[in-house]
Amino acid sequence: MQMSHRISAFQCSPIRRLSPYARDAVKRGIKVYHLNIGQPDIKTPVQVIEAVHQYSETIIAYGNSEGRQELREALPGYYAKYGLDVKAEDILITTGGSEALQFAFMTLCDPYDEVIIPEPYYTNVSSFAHSAMVDLVPITSNMEDGFALPDISEFEKKITRKTGAILLCSPNNPTGHVYTKDEMLQLLNLCKKHDIFLIVDEVYREFCYDGKQFTSVLAFPEFSDRVICVDSFSKRYSMCGSRIGALISRNKDVLDNALKLAQARLCPPDIEQVAACAALKTDDSYLFEVRNEYERRRNFIVDGLQKIDGVKCSMPKGAFYMVAELPVDNAEKFAMFLLKDFNLNGETVMVAPCEDFYVTKGVGRRQVRIAYVLNTHDLERAVACIDAGLKAYRKEVMGEKL
Amino acid sequence: MQMSHRISAFQCSPIRRLSPYARDAVKRGIKVYHLNIGQPDIKTPVQVIEAVHQYSETIIAYGNSEGRQELREALPGYYAKYGLDVKAEDILITTGGSEALQFAFMTLCDPYDEVIIPEPYYTNVSSFAHSAMVDLVPITSNMEDGFALPDISEFEKKITRKTGAILLCSPNNPTGHVYTKDEMLQLLNLCKKHDIFLIVDEVYREFCYDGKQFTSVLAFPEFSDRVICVDSFSKRYSMCGSRIGALISRNKDVLDNALKLAQARLCPPDIEQVAACAALKTDDSYLFEVRNEYERRRNFIVDGLQKIDGVKCSMPKGAFYMVAELPVDNAEKFAMFLLKDFNLNGETVMVAPCEDFYVTKGVGRRQVRIAYVLNTHDLERAVACIDAGLKAYRKEVMGEKL
Repeated sequence: MQMSHRISAFQCSPIRRLSPYARDAVKRGIKVYHLNIGQPDIKTPVQVIEAVHQYSETIIAYGNSEGRQELREALPGYYAKYGLDVKAEDILITTGGSEALQFAFMTLCDPYDEVIIPEPYYTNVSSFAHSAMVDLVPITSNMEDGFALPDISEFEKKITRKTGAILLCSPNNPTGHVYTKDEMLQLLNLCKKHDIFLIVDEVYREFCYDGKQFTSVLAFPEFSDRVICVDSFSKRYSMCGSRIGALISRNKDVLDNALKLAQARLCPPDIEQVAACAALKTDDSYLFEVRNEYERRRNFIVDGLQKIDGVKCSMPKGAFYMVAELPVDNAEKFAMFLLKDFNLNGETVMVAPCEDFYVTKGVGRRQVRIAYVLNTHDLERAVACIDAGLKAYRKEVMGEKL
Repeated sequence: MQMSHRISAFQCSPIRRLSPYARDAVKRGIKVYHLNIGQPDIKTPVQVIEAVHQYSETIIAYGNSEGRQELREALPGYYAKYGLDVKAEDILITTGGSEALQFAFMTLCDPYDEVIIPEPYYTNVSSFAHSAMVDLVPITSNMEDGFALPDISEFEKKITRKTGAILLCSPNNPTGHVYTKDEMLQLLNLCKKHDIFLIVDEVYREFCYDGKQFTSVLAFPEFSDRVICVDSFSKRYSMCGSRIGALISRNKDVLDNALKLAQARLCPPDIEQVAACAALKTDDSYLFEVRNEYERRRNFIVDGLQKIDGVKCSMPKGAFYMVAELPVDNAEKFAMFLLKDFNLNGETVMVAPCEDFYVTKGVGRRQVRIAYVLNTHDLERAVACIDAGLKAYRKEVMGEKL
């Protein structure tokens, strides 16, 4: 039986497709440090779990397609802490930031329309674009300048009649770049000039380091009609499994049309929305401490990786990912080698090969994304595995004489 | 700013688009009986709520894209009760049956491919087809024979090179028809002859009345390679808000390819999956009692509606919906009238106009879908409202002299 051409052309997620090899390694008794996926080992705020334990409904019923009203009404208070004026009616609760991205593509773009995106980018965006039959048009950002915004003229060159939007992620997954106010303004002015949208995925908003200030796309009310912000509770409150996100826009047409998609899928999961309501009551000290913990981890892993012969990386400014360039022929082959053919005292590491974080062919073939979501003790072991794994791979597979 | 043509062409769900009028009615102090949406007033099994209260994780973490392993391993025991041989690896846990339908369309069909479906059908299927750019090709079923399977030759006439699948819902939403073993076999043989898939939405499996036997599409192992079953916990355990469903297929290509979509959206909601695990431990007496309760309600509402002058309906055999033809010019206008311009002693009813449950234009304009999900006391009030509402509408709007 024939599957669709569309699905056959789909890549398996490079973040997850090596998982069977990791499971096999575990079966062989090997401990695997997961740096491939942004699953933090940070505890979910205790009030969130308590709210789940106190779930008071006797029927887990369909809710509003827009999301629980109490959640939509509580969120503006969260945004107000950042000086952002967001109203309940600007908010559509989604099943994860993933769904918000899918809704944004469907709402703004027709098949074969284009969305411009700096690469490397969060690889699952490819799947959402492919599902919506939207073409991603990449602008390559570079490790040398910390993956900063490429020159705005590069974006302008790519704008055509088919361009529906520019898509950004800030703080950036996978590069860790935090777009500056000036970078945001340049993009917004460009979008205005060409009458297109700017979509910004801000799910790592809290995780900015070195005292760096975060600039939200929602901080520019004069551009409100062309802005969509994608948000999520997953990373902020370490509740990735709850799948509660949001699509925020002050453009009523966007919300009204995205609601059609929301109504078709009925509603977001109810218990998880109750959990999200509780998350918003979390004391600011939680986010402050989590931020500091990630900053510590970042310093630790960058320091560790830079000491390994041949490894290149820049200092990420936010989120909890980094891109590292490795002295190997093919990072995916190396990632598989680590899981299949290597261990250091019974331990190994899983990383995400970066090639599929780019549209441009061949770029990123020697890069991996590392999620520094483990504690520094585990990160120390993981770095040791990468170091020893590189030596083994270069010798055994690449035939180098080290 | 221009929205996409695609989203502009989307209908708002006829099940939900009158909701603002219902909310306005409530604001005016009017009690609204909701027969528009399949939200039962039946309590979720108490073990399900208890499992939520005992959720034992301290981090709500990403799970497997395939769903929680314990849930996938528990489900075969549920199917075995129906004599169905389903293995854990045949199961992909989805975010509601809705997502399973979307995955099925994307996996089997390319843009402009066709899916043949008896109409009237569950209207949200239109949205999922439209999102996937799949064309629904309708075969009209008729109230006169209880919306039974139209002659198989009607299906064969519609099969073209673009046909990817036939889609069925059994027991049927909205008609209540339960497809017989013979009907299923005819369709499966036709699918085999033309090398296409049969997708069957079986989320109302337990709700068959008058001692009628349910026949699952999974009961025909010789056709396993061309079968997808869509399932959900929502209706069975009255936990619609939990959004846990499943895509079942013994065709490994289907599962492997649908998994690509599942990996992109990461995982289904975790707490709700724990709730679903507990649901599977529900004593069979729960389902038995719920089934009997719905049968009572069906008898009650059909009896009530048939007594109203000019109302036509057939006796549904399963699920908890029925289609009624009303003596009005336009059922959507009437549904809106009930919410905006009518009340009976401070009460009114919300129903779903059926026109959008058909692809064929003009058919179903005088029909409404009624979900008999309320207790008989409420149903009695609701029927009285429909009766009085019809009289008022025919007099005030249609100018009839009754």
